[in-house]
Amino acid sequence: MKLFDTIDKIKFEGPDSDNSLAFKYYNPDQIVAGKPMKEHLRFAMSYWHTLTGDGSDPFGAATMERPWNELDGIEQAKLRADIGFEFMEKLGMEYFCFHDLDIAPEGKNLKEKHANLDIIVDYIEELMKKTGIKCLWGTTNAFTHPRFVHGASTSPNADVFAYAAAQVKKAMEITMRLGGENYVFWGGREGYETLLNTNTELELDNLARFLQMAVDYKEKIGFTGQLLIEPKPKEPTKHQYDFDTATVLGFLRKYNLQDHFKLNIEANHATLAMHTFDHELNMCRINGALGSIDANQGDLLLGWDTDQFPTNIYDAVLAMIEVLKNGGIAPGGLNFDSKVRRGSFEPVDLFYGYIAGMDTFARGLIIADNLIKDGVFDNFTKERYASYETGIGKQIINKEVGFEELENYALGLGDIKNTSGRQELLENILNQYIYR
Amino acid sequence: MKLFDTIDKIKFEGPDSDNSLAFKYYNPDQIVAGKPMKEHLRFAMSYWHTLTGDGSDPFGAATMERPWNELDGIEQAKLRADIGFEFMEKLGMEYFCFHDLDIAPEGKNLKEKHANLDIIVDYIEELMKKTGIKCLWGTTNAFTHPRFVHGASTSPNADVFAYAAAQVKKAMEITMRLGGENYVFWGGREGYETLLNTNTELELDNLARFLQMAVDYKEKIGFTGQLLIEPKPKEPTKHQYDFDTATVLGFLRKYNLQDHFKLNIEANHATLAMHTFDHELNMCRINGALGSIDANQGDLLLGWDTDQFPTNIYDAVLAMIEVLKNGGIAPGGLNFDSKVRRGSFEPVDLFYGYIAGMDTFARGLIIADNLIKDGVFDNFTKERYASYETGIGKQIINKEVGFEELENYALGLGDIKNTSGRQELLENILNQYIYR
Amino acid sequence: MKLFDTIDKIKFEGPDSDNSLAFKYYNPDQIVAGKPMKEHLRFAMSYWHTLTGDGSDPFGAATMERPWNELDGIEQAKLRADIGFEFMEKLGMEYFCFHDLDIAPEGKNLKEKHANLDIIVDYIEELMKKTGIKCLWGTTNAFTHPRFVHGASTSPNADVFAYAAAQVKKAMEITMRLGGENYVFWGGREGYETLLNTNTELELDNLARFLQMAVDYKEKIGFTGQLLIEPKPKEPTKHQYDFDTATVLGFLRKYNLQDHFKLNIEANHATLAMHTFDHELNMCRINGALGSIDANQGDLLLGWDTDQFPTNIYDAVLAMIEVLKNGGIAPGGLNFDSKVRRGSFEPVDLFYGYIAGMDTFARGLIIADNLIKDGVFDNFTKERYASYETGIGKQIINKEVGFEELENYALGLGDIKNTSGRQELLENILNQYIYR
Amino acid sequence: MKLFDTIDKIKFEGPDSDNSLAFKYYNPDQIVAGKPMKEHLRFAMSYWHTLTGDGSDPFGAATMERPWNELDGIEQAKLRADIGFEFMEKLGMEYFCFHDLDIAPEGKNLKEKHANLDIIVDYIEELMKKTGIKCLWGTTNAFTHPRFVHGASTSPNADVFAYAAAQVKKAMEITMRLGGENYVFWGGREGYETLLNTNTELELDNLARFLQMAVDYKEKIGFTGQLLIEPKPKEPTKHQYDFDTATVLGFLRKYNLQDHFKLNIEANHATLAMHTFDHELNMCRINGALGSIDANQGDLLLGWDTDQFPTNIYDAVLAMIEVLKNGGIAPGGLNFDSKVRRGSFEPVDLFYGYIAGMDTFARGLIIADNLIKDGVFDNFTKERYASYETGIGKQIINKEVGFEELENYALGLGDIKNTSGRQELLENILNQYIYR
Repeated sequence: MKLFDTIDKIKFEGPDSDNSLAFKYYNPDQIVAGKPMKEHLRFAMSYWHTLTGDGSDPFGAATMERPWNELDGIEQAKLRADIGFEFMEKLGMEYFCFHDLDIAPEGKNLKEKHANLDIIVDYIEELMKKTGIKCLWGTTNAFTHPRFVHGASTSPNADVFAYAAAQVKKAMEITMRLGGENYVFWGGREGYETLLNTNTELELDNLARFLQMAVDYKEKIGFTGQLLIEPKPKEPTKHQYDFDTATVLGFLRKYNLQDHFKLNIEANHATLAMHTFDHELNMCRINGALGSIDANQGDLLLGWDTDQFPTNIYDAVLAMIEVLKNGGIAPGGLNFDSKVRRGSFEPVDLFYGYIAGMDTFARGLIIADNLIKDGVFDNFTKERYASYETGIGKQIINKEVGFEELENYALGLGDIKNTSGRQELLENILNQYIYR
Repeated sequence: MKLFDTIDKIKFEGPDSDNSLAFKYYNPDQIVAGKPMKEHLRFAMSYWHTLTGDGSDPFGAATMERPWNELDGIEQAKLRADIGFEFMEKLGMEYFCFHDLDIAPEGKNLKEKHANLDIIVDYIEELMKKTGIKCLWGTTNAFTHPRFVHGASTSPNADVFAYAAAQVKKAMEITMRLGGENYVFWGGREGYETLLNTNTELELDNLARFLQMAVDYKEKIGFTGQLLIEPKPKEPTKHQYDFDTATVLGFLRKYNLQDHFKLNIEANHATLAMHTFDHELNMCRINGALGSIDANQGDLLLGWDTDQFPTNIYDAVLAMIEVLKNGGIAPGGLNFDSKVRRGSFEPVDLFYGYIAGMDTFARGLIIADNLIKDGVFDNFTKERYASYETGIGKQIINKEVGFEELENYALGLGDIKNTSGRQELLENILNQYIYR
Repeated sequence: MKLFDTIDKIKFEGPDSDNSLAFKYYNPDQIVAGKPMKEHLRFAMSYWHTLTGDGSDPFGAATMERPWNELDGIEQAKLRADIGFEFMEKLGMEYFCFHDLDIAPEGKNLKEKHANLDIIVDYIEELMKKTGIKCLWGTTNAFTHPRFVHGASTSPNADVFAYAAAQVKKAMEITMRLGGENYVFWGGREGYETLLNTNTELELDNLARFLQMAVDYKEKIGFTGQLLIEPKPKEPTKHQYDFDTATVLGFLRKYNLQDHFKLNIEANHATLAMHTFDHELNMCRINGALGSIDANQGDLLLGWDTDQFPTNIYDAVLAMIEVLKNGGIAPGGLNFDSKVRRGSFEPVDLFYGYIAGMDTFARGLIIADNLIKDGVFDNFTKERYASYETGIGKQIINKEVGFEELENYALGLGDIKNTSGRQELLENILNQYIYR
Repeated sequence: MKLFDTIDKIKFEGPDSDNSLAFKYYNPDQIVAGKPMKEHLRFAMSYWHTLTGDGSDPFGAATMERPWNELDGIEQAKLRADIGFEFMEKLGMEYFCFHDLDIAPEGKNLKEKHANLDIIVDYIEELMKKTGIKCLWGTTNAFTHPRFVHGASTSPNADVFAYAAAQVKKAMEITMRLGGENYVFWGGREGYETLLNTNTELELDNLARFLQMAVDYKEKIGFTGQLLIEPKPKEPTKHQYDFDTATVLGFLRKYNLQDHFKLNIEANHATLAMHTFDHELNMCRINGALGSIDANQGDLLLGWDTDQFPTNIYDAVLAMIEVLKNGGIAPGGLNFDSKVRRGSFEPVDLFYGYIAGMDTFARGLIIADNLIKDGVFDNFTKERYASYETGIGKQIINKEVGFEELENYALGLGDIKNTSGRQELLENILNQYIYR
């Protein structure tokens, strides 16, 4: 049984194609900045939004027309896997990302859950071998089940901590077995609803204890993938501990975990935290902590995680600038943590969504590369900070001066001359690079 | 020349008073939790909003009716000081906070500025001696002058870095001379407008270099006050580096500055960062970093810093719970970084504003003390986390178990039983304590 | 089968009671402003949040422990009704509000749905007779089912318009049969996701056509209840046509429907539209359009409809001022469109939530009455606008002058003298009334 | 004295030009959709941001380097006018917009203000004759002066109402004399800070009385320009009465003013009201109320009016779609209510800002025209609503059916079949049109 019998493999047809089922910009083997596009972008399918998302929302029931709607249990899980791999093949998508709960039914208890996972992991392994598609990252879902109502590793209930630990252990094992290059922690319930009933100090200490156990177990089993933390400020929890990049980096440093974790940055989580996407990527990059990307976009006029397919070219260009300056995103990638709108319920809309996202980032890559090659922003910025390369600026950098020397220097200054930041000009040049 | 000839010293008259120029709750010597109210609250007048604020806004001119409107230069500065100390005396306010630019005219250059400061500091010192009023903290204004258009210690221009250093040096000296118990850093221009022209890495490194110089100079001159950083996420700058408590703590740890700085938390800055006021206080407290408080409130339906006098009793109670649990706020205090509305332009409105704020926090203190004494939230919370005091929970805390032991444990669990978080009940009890 | 065997009727025990299952302020027969509290407040239970809400959220499964979890179909519906009426009796709640879908299962088609409704309406009618509990309002759910994915009366699909019409027809008939005093329209899907595919003009015209049909049918069957529109700016739809009070009033006037509809104002919808709750009530009141209230509260730091039980006393006081000035809320009422938090999953939390909400509004009523009786804000405001009662102000009101006369008058004016708005003083007095 | 001696007239050089002082897309006489670009766009310079804006912000002093900084009074006003017209000529800008206060000093009283205006209007009239540059619209500034602290036409002080009337009278006369094609009302202080001291009913009635006087006076003097209201939700006032398009339209209908006013829509005001720019334009268009446009853009992560030069191509395309469907924007235009960033303080940045904005809208026009010509969204949308052109849909439109007929129809329906809204596909096609 196939979902997409009538749809052929999506091909690159170039910018002038009017074929809505073709790539206009994503040309996987085209060389950009010295390597094929696909190696820059390392696109991944999100198992959840693509294969288990049903279009329900807080006020509405499922809308998605999917062939597995009539099935359940292991049979449903296998059909999802079949169709998911068919979908990835047709898109030329080389990676996927998953939660344990996406791929296998929960079961009545932990033992049954583990057994279900083992069946499906066998199945998926076969599909991977057959198709050559790889696992970008795995994770566990420790937020949906009611047992996690008050948190997982930050639950007030030690049994829940233990259960979450067992879940991560198994999910890490599975990820390792599938050759996953990363393992992600997103703490959807790690936070609080009200301080009236919360011991934040104990909860944060427990979060650190939990992550240290993950580090220990990773080493024990020899899992060589990256460990990633995914920040989000809120939703579902009122305050989530992993609020944003800066918060996570500070937490890691406090608990001496900074050498063991990098970050998985999601565009929509960035804007929910009142930051731009490129701000979050930049903060990661300059701290050596850029691990992977959840590619999507939010609606800045709405206050929740809309997880839309990324089609804003500005965001894509600025993101790819950070990725290129980072020397690439590997072993991370660009995972489409994106879902078709509830009103885009036909199977073909999945193709439209992914094509839109892949073309946007492909074009973003090309533009970013041009901007960097031409030194458009870099030359301007270098010049702007030139005063730190000589004289008093150099002495500051080299820590050769303190307040007293600087006061002496300042007393001798006439009016200080600054130069314009040229924001309007730079924005206009960015537009030129986007259009041409 | 006096501003408030017709207004006597503001007295405590108790809750039933209808005198709008009396305290209903702030009774400075009333013992609460073992010490006088005034020692818990350590209220301070903000020099800027009270004595230099003129009621202008981005769309409107000055409205405030003030006797110094007709003066300028040193004469204006002295009249402000006279009236400010009269005002504090009448309020029974024991502290004030200031920027260098609040107390003395800028002058044509740094030398003249220093000279102006020396004159006024002499003058203020006299007023302090005469009245017994003390300095809670001082700071420099490194954001108003156009030279700081692109930042102060994070300016792309090394001359500006030097100038800012000279300003902080002098401001710290003045603060020390006035017996200031703290020195504050608020980086209104330390951030960026657009990443297109910004080297965030260099700027953040420079910010750290600057703060290290401040630490060095403090030690050199033997200033024993606390150094405080005041977070704010944005405004005037699009992105401010000291976004919130978590960001600042992470920054301090990265640059190994965490032993030298605590935080000055402002309610309105908390909400601009999408946090509650008590969240920010709590994060400081559990990290041993609660330094001082800027007491005001924002309007959560408006997107800028409204700096209103704090009258919301919920915020005051929750803040005072954190202060009491912190063992007090000293050597910090509660500085009213609050301004009367532009439409409250008569001098007497300053009294109404401060009385409103002081009564609100006085009542907040009493309620917080009652809640803590009765163990209202603490007993509930202790019980909620009891599972970490024995058995597997205790083993987790003691790091006696890892993922493998926890998996074994979890496999043996039946359905996990959580208990309700009781948010509605706790909120209702809070109301009871507020009313009675 | 009873849910609350161990819980007795909730009694008024006064402010000093420590019984968490007693009212501290809600004393139904206590006379306030000339009539019993309960007649001012006209509290109603929301059928959905109380009896069908399960605690699920976009990232989490159901948590609520409810006795009907094991049942389905008509049996489940009957058990819900039994327990709902038991709950209302124990609370002394005199009204309930419902969607058709809350009380009866959807069925396979419209005919079956109607049949299910008829069975349950018979059943509820019996419970109403037995208990004396009344119906405040009914409505239809035209947003959950996937057929409404693109709207109900504003769907691009005329069949959906027809289906929605059939639903409203039946729901209005049921409401009438149960003696409902109001019928509500909330257009959760009446809006758009993107203008790229939307004909707003046709959709808005259709919305008006639909409402006119409702008016016609109401008249035809002799239903004498009020028709109410409930504004909400967004969620689940990106832009909802009934954005806020002003938008709805403008829409009604455009289509000449203003004599047939009043508004149902929800606190959380007000703040999602960036208005205060009292702003929305005030705008309704001065336009003669205040119909009913959905009592709850949102979290202003979160961007979605949290529908929390209302415990903020400021909001309750300001809301009850508007209600009292409106001459009461009847035939509307205060419907608790509020849900216990996902973490408050035990049945008793329903009592805690409702008690919190009812006590908050009872206390709000008393404070509002005191403020009005004492003329606290009214006298100040009357004086503030006194210039319109004589001279040029009176001429303006009476339209006796135009620009030319006013220019002449203005040319003769010296400096204009305004007086302070006294916001800080007024806020502080409000606090005094809250505390005492 | 000239500001821009070294800058020549800005020419169109096409997309491949690297000249930062050339247009890449704005080619005034290029024919698009049957008429020259410049007739579609009708660009205007904003006198205030361009000639009086000084770069100050709530935390910072003026930064802008301008030749009139050393002057004041009439001499300053004349130099501004000279340079403003030089600037417009060099840009090929055919219109300007102004407040009375932008062009002439306030004077000591109304009489002196009028006299100042008369001098400057003579002066500007000469410049207009010499250059052929026209006035798009005029207005009065009734928000900056402290007399307007509590409002202008909605002030509690009738003298202020009178003064505002005199200002509008004079400003309308001036606008008429300068051949202004529109007159704008922006009520920056028409709203309230707190309901505790506000009579909203009287204030709104007064606002309507004021506008009616404006209509009467316009007719009396034979001014044939359009009257425009500019919505803004907040800032500087907490709640502004002209919140958004829907609010203004409802207000106009309530007071029977709808035939006399259209709207002036500003992009940044739209987003402050939580709407997209194109939403506001669309709401105007379908109500026959699209009058003019204030072209700028806000930062959706900041909560105030940033008034940035518009460089977002998505906004420009979607705006121009609405303008084209409206049959053009005349007699309105596209006024750049945009200011260079505080850090873009050199004179040449004014050129960079305007070039960026003009190129963005020029390109937006071309893309919008292509999208309309190709029927990209229109054909899809027409098909989407086809069910209203026949059968039951047509009967609904024609009001031939009511609830009873629709219920009968719905009972006969099987499962309703909707079709996908295709948002992702449409967004991707929009990108294609932007790139190519």
